[in-house]
Amino acid sequence: MKVGKLNHVGIAVPSLEEAMETYRTLYGATDFVEPFDMPAQGVKVAFVNLPNSQIELIEPLGEDSPILNYLAKNPKGGQHHVCFEVDDVNQAIEDAIASGASIIGKPRIGAHGTLMIFVHPKNSNGVLVELMEPPKDH
Amino acid sequence: MKVGKLNHVGIAVPSLEEAMETYRTLYGATDFVEPFDMPAQGVKVAFVNLPNSQIELIEPLGEDSPILNYLAKNPKGGQHHVCFEVDDVNQAIEDAIASGASIIGKPRIGAHGTLMIFVHPKNSNGVLVELMEPPKDH
Repeated sequence: MKVGKLNHVGIAVPSLEEAMETYRTLYGATDFVEPFDMPAQGVKVAFVNLPNSQIELIEPLGEDSPILNYLAKNPKGGQHHVCFEVDDVNQAIEDAIASGASIIGKPRIGAHGTLMIFVHPKNSNGVLVELMEPPKDH
Repeated sequence: MKVGKLNHVGIAVPSLEEAMETYRTLYGATDFVEPFDMPAQGVKVAFVNLPNSQIELIEPLGEDSPILNYLAKNPKGGQHHVCFEVDDVNQAIEDAIASGASIIGKPRIGAHGTLMIFVHPKNSNGVLVELMEPPKDH
């Protein structure tokens, strides 16, 4: 595998609206992707568009949201994952497994409409790494 | 203040060499800034250069390193901060304080040779945010 761009940093937050307001008023961000639900993944997301990358804001959706556990430990929120682009997620999974790494779950369509997978944080210095195929509008 | 590019994501690690090896062998990164000491800040850093941004790997340097406390809580390492570029750090500090945010310490020269400051994580959903002036080679 060969990672390309840092597509986004995922930040878990208790409230998308409040987090977007922080990026708007404290940091002067002006370009956002408005919140939308991803029920299959148990999250609601919004994006702060920066000139070269994005911040993905992630709020729990539903009682089984995988983000609830994270927010129980970090009530204010925090950095949840880092996402790199790869040309081919299925190939990246093969390569990761061949390198002895553990992937989490099965590949699925992510917030950008392309295939993605997570690599276990134990394999990357405690950092949950998402690998995704580049967005179509790249 | 108006943030620009996502300059880098800072990741605290127990060993720069092992972390670089992970990015090299698992993720196929090929472009690195080799480790160098920043004794005034109590850290040793290296960078993984991606096409649009960087991963800053941070290892403790000395017995008073500000990273030691983080690694005591996260022995394998973890996401430590996110860094946005701003045109003028001193102006950004004024703006942050006027917005009711707390900055940490005083502005100083960072790993890219330009002025930087940290905004307290309590002001940004538990995320430690570095603001830095763009590197000279931008």
